[in-house]
Amino acid sequence: MFAISLGDDGAELRPLEPWQAEEFWAHMERGREFIGRYIGLADRVADVEGARSYLRTYAEKAAADAGRIYGIWTDGKLVGGVLFRTMDVEQGVAEAGCWLEPAAVGKGLVTRAARVIIDWAVEERGIHRVEWRASAANESSIAVARRLGMTKDGVLRESFLYRGTRHDIEIWSVLAPEWRAGKQAA
Amino acid sequence: MFAISLGDDGAELRPLEPWQAEEFWAHMERGREFIGRYIGLADRVADVEGARSYLRTYAEKAAADAGRIYGIWTDGKLVGGVLFRTMDVEQGVAEAGCWLEPAAVGKGLVTRAARVIIDWAVEERGIHRVEWRASAANESSIAVARRLGMTKDGVLRESFLYRGTRHDIEIWSVLAPEWRAGKQAA
Amino acid sequence: MFAISLGDDGAELRPLEPWQAEEFWAHMERGREFIGRYIGLADRVADVEGARSYLRTYAEKAAADAGRIYGIWTDGKLVGGVLFRTMDVEQGVAEAGCWLEPAAVGKGLVTRAARVIIDWAVEERGIHRVEWRASAANESSIAVARRLGMTKDGVLRESFLYRGTRHDIEIWSVLAPEWRAGKQAA
Amino acid sequence: MFAISLGDDGAELRPLEPWQAEEFWAHMERGREFIGRYIGLADRVADVEGARSYLRTYAEKAAADAGRIYGIWTDGKLVGGVLFRTMDVEQGVAEAGCWLEPAAVGKGLVTRAARVIIDWAVEERGIHRVEWRASAANESSIAVARRLGMTKDGVLRESFLYRGTRHDIEIWSVLAPEWRAGKQAA
Amino acid sequence: MFAISLGDDGAELRPLEPWQAEEFWAHMERGREFIGRYIGLADRVADVEGARSYLRTYAEKAAADAGRIYGIWTDGKLVGGVLFRTMDVEQGVAEAGCWLEPAAVGKGLVTRAARVIIDWAVEERGIHRVEWRASAANESSIAVARRLGMTKDGVLRESFLYRGTRHDIEIWSVLAPEWRAGKQAA
Amino acid sequence: MFAISLGDDGAELRPLEPWQAEEFWAHMERGREFIGRYIGLADRVADVEGARSYLRTYAEKAAADAGRIYGIWTDGKLVGGVLFRTMDVEQGVAEAGCWLEPAAVGKGLVTRAARVIIDWAVEERGIHRVEWRASAANESSIAVARRLGMTKDGVLRESFLYRGTRHDIEIWSVLAPEWRAGKQAA
Repeated sequence: MFAISLGDDGAELRPLEPWQAEEFWAHMERGREFIGRYIGLADRVADVEGARSYLRTYAEKAAADAGRIYGIWTDGKLVGGVLFRTMDVEQGVAEAGCWLEPAAVGKGLVTRAARVIIDWAVEERGIHRVEWRASAANESSIAVARRLGMTKDGVLRESFLYRGTRHDIEIWSVLAPEWRAGKQAA
Repeated sequence: MFAISLGDDGAELRPLEPWQAEEFWAHMERGREFIGRYIGLADRVADVEGARSYLRTYAEKAAADAGRIYGIWTDGKLVGGVLFRTMDVEQGVAEAGCWLEPAAVGKGLVTRAARVIIDWAVEERGIHRVEWRASAANESSIAVARRLGMTKDGVLRESFLYRGTRHDIEIWSVLAPEWRAGKQAA
Repeated sequence: MFAISLGDDGAELRPLEPWQAEEFWAHMERGREFIGRYIGLADRVADVEGARSYLRTYAEKAAADAGRIYGIWTDGKLVGGVLFRTMDVEQGVAEAGCWLEPAAVGKGLVTRAARVIIDWAVEERGIHRVEWRASAANESSIAVARRLGMTKDGVLRESFLYRGTRHDIEIWSVLAPEWRAGKQAA
Repeated sequence: MFAISLGDDGAELRPLEPWQAEEFWAHMERGREFIGRYIGLADRVADVEGARSYLRTYAEKAAADAGRIYGIWTDGKLVGGVLFRTMDVEQGVAEAGCWLEPAAVGKGLVTRAARVIIDWAVEERGIHRVEWRASAANESSIAVARRLGMTKDGVLRESFLYRGTRHDIEIWSVLAPEWRAGKQAA
Repeated sequence: MFAISLGDDGAELRPLEPWQAEEFWAHMERGREFIGRYIGLADRVADVEGARSYLRTYAEKAAADAGRIYGIWTDGKLVGGVLFRTMDVEQGVAEAGCWLEPAAVGKGLVTRAARVIIDWAVEERGIHRVEWRASAANESSIAVARRLGMTKDGVLRESFLYRGTRHDIEIWSVLAPEWRAGKQAA
Repeated sequence: MFAISLGDDGAELRPLEPWQAEEFWAHMERGREFIGRYIGLADRVADVEGARSYLRTYAEKAAADAGRIYGIWTDGKLVGGVLFRTMDVEQGVAEAGCWLEPAAVGKGLVTRAARVIIDWAVEERGIHRVEWRASAANESSIAVARRLGMTKDGVLRESFLYRGTRHDIEIWSVLAPEWRAGKQAA
């Protein structure tokens, strides 16, 4: 029902809800290997029930105002999304993230979508600090953080055990005044 | 973030979430007496905490795919809303409803908003029967049911005890084929 | 332990509790096809665990004063029952219902049993409106409503999807003054 | 609705449910000092909300088949009751108990009521051992145990701290074969 | 991390927590037949998941200050334990118990361990009465009660159904003044 | 009952459980202003009920193997503590922390206590990475991290809103191999 245009190519940002579990799972099937290189999402959405359970978690976060998830559609097909894994309005801190199936890479979709939700978080919800966490090896995710005008706060050494390997996790962030200055500059 | 235009007068339909409890309560303050003539909503949203609790109930319904609530904004002000009090996708049955503060009456806002959500329910969610329940004395609500092309299914005699009086409750409905035929005709 | 005589033929109304799950299931086995023509009860009591779970639901409704279930015994055998699917004492509204295995049909057992529980609801619990819902095709259930002195309030068109078919659901009701007048007349 | 006659004097045993909280509390008001000499029940039913909460606990025990509570009425007035504080059908063990307001003392009401529920537990529910616990100072309760044909199993020395004093608690019991022999003899 | 020496032979008493489920299960494997002669513990710890669930129950009792479990280690191997199955600080009553794998029998380990926890219960937690329950046939458990200076309060006749047989359960106890006198004497 | 010596001065590390709520609160009363300069603990333990609730949270974390809390006693008085705010054994990551009342400062108590629990986490529980988070202004906490041989991973800029001010939070860590090397060197 609701949709926000992400640009002239017809890409749209929409709510992503539990009833869309099948569509979400089908999308994950197309991107499983690619998405699963650095993040656990691919494993959690192993089947339709896992997809529903994952989306329900986010619906409950929305009910508690503690997180949000949105999908990105191009040509009517769900190809990725952005989310606030956590959102602490009292503290003014939120952690954003993203994923994308391979066919949708290279169009700046995630950056465009992240701009929309970060702007909402900062301007409408009073979030002061938006974080971005990514494996140090996940170059495309780190590139998004850079494009969003974020600064690297540090590296959590060997903090993420994933598929048998310990990954360094980089933490990037943008503060509300920096976000506003970035918009001015653009 | 998300909004659907309801027409040239700038009216918009948007998600209505727990974090908007203060705005919802302020709106209810403006419309309390008017809204409270026939429905219990006004009493449930007695204070900001009641507003938050009410919206949280609907956020949980959304998480369970069992109901939805949306607000209507004109000139950036929340003036009313439409909702699916219940939504049973497996059965294909949903019960819609509405409310409006007095200053927003007479512009067809509720009818326009209800059309949007009923169409979504029928066309995207496979709902076969959309119900509308209203006190037999609530003429404006019944007028909306009529404008939506609904048929009166019956009257639940003295079924609603409200503020010390027993009200007859009318049940109206529109079935998916009727809804589609109505669109064709329009 | 407790029992109420339903007449000279030895039929009795008794509480029906979770510990009677096996007896309830065995009764459903005898009546499954017949009972399952119009209502979902037969499917829910598919095995002893389903029987226990169903009866537990009603025990919890009793604990919350939100529903009741009772069995009908003839010659020491459980052959059917009556229930309040819902019971809202604050609103003064309850929905009654019934079921029967085929061997017990034609003796007026359900009508006799329903009279007992409706009279309790009206006279001891202050229920003002007792509802009865049945598929329009379920002639024997509608005949009970008529025998109980109920009035047809309306028809919820195509509101019940059951075994692949959409059923019209009739709503009948009797109000407390009507119930008392009916007793006077009898 | 349900009632079992306890004798020619019109005394009756009936279910005691949460909706009867006010009646239960009024009864406790009449007997509070007397009932409170040896058992904590009087304190738990301090007000109507406490009465409702206590009865709800027993309704939930009934739902779980883990306990039961029943009231004794004389001349239409609730004057006391009997209960299974615990009931473990798998183990075949239940603990019975009782209380009475002073005006109803001396008529054997509790003994008559306890006989009904113990017989149900033994004969219909397969309980092998029915326990009875009472403060060693509570002579009338111990007299009931004796009248029920129970044997003293022992004394839990200083095991019950009540109103600042440590009470010895006597445990009495009757086993199923003893119960049946007792009935034969009577 | 924590450990209390139980004597010169290196035996130690330590907390026993859910993360030790595998070690607990391996110990139970060694002692299953022996331990299972009189108590249900052996059956509950049938596999690692059962061990974890059992230990979690006790971790939750500790969180609610309603029970405790401790293991006995000799030569770095878990060989048995002592516990407070229940602990009611407000009432000042706790029920202690124990178990041991056969290779560790005959060294007084349980008596030594029980002394430590009973002394803590009496002196630091204000427990007035420590109970000990054992099948009348479980001579070694009853011998421990005797060595702890306990008195037999009585016998719950045929109260414990275990593996198809009804066992008499003896109740022993020691009161705080008796405990202190016993220490003085020692 | 359990205690670990922290050195020749008689300081001890012990479990800190809900039943010690009063002692914990009395300690917080002595240290409230000092402890509250940089961490929210002082506000959470505002009264005995808050102390109990806080300790219960940690008892539940222990039950779920997701965190631990321990107290430091000198001369029989609780003066501070160390904790694992989080502990994810599957990931091999835990976050340690500490607090101290002012009279106990300057004796290295926290460093000694932290060494004990970190060593347990690394050597007995398989934790690979122990984190330490502190406000950049909290020099004494950062000095502990340094004394524990930790490395600064980064600074979460303005991430902690406390008493109206946004604090930079430093993240320090030590990895298992570093921990073992540090012990070797000492």
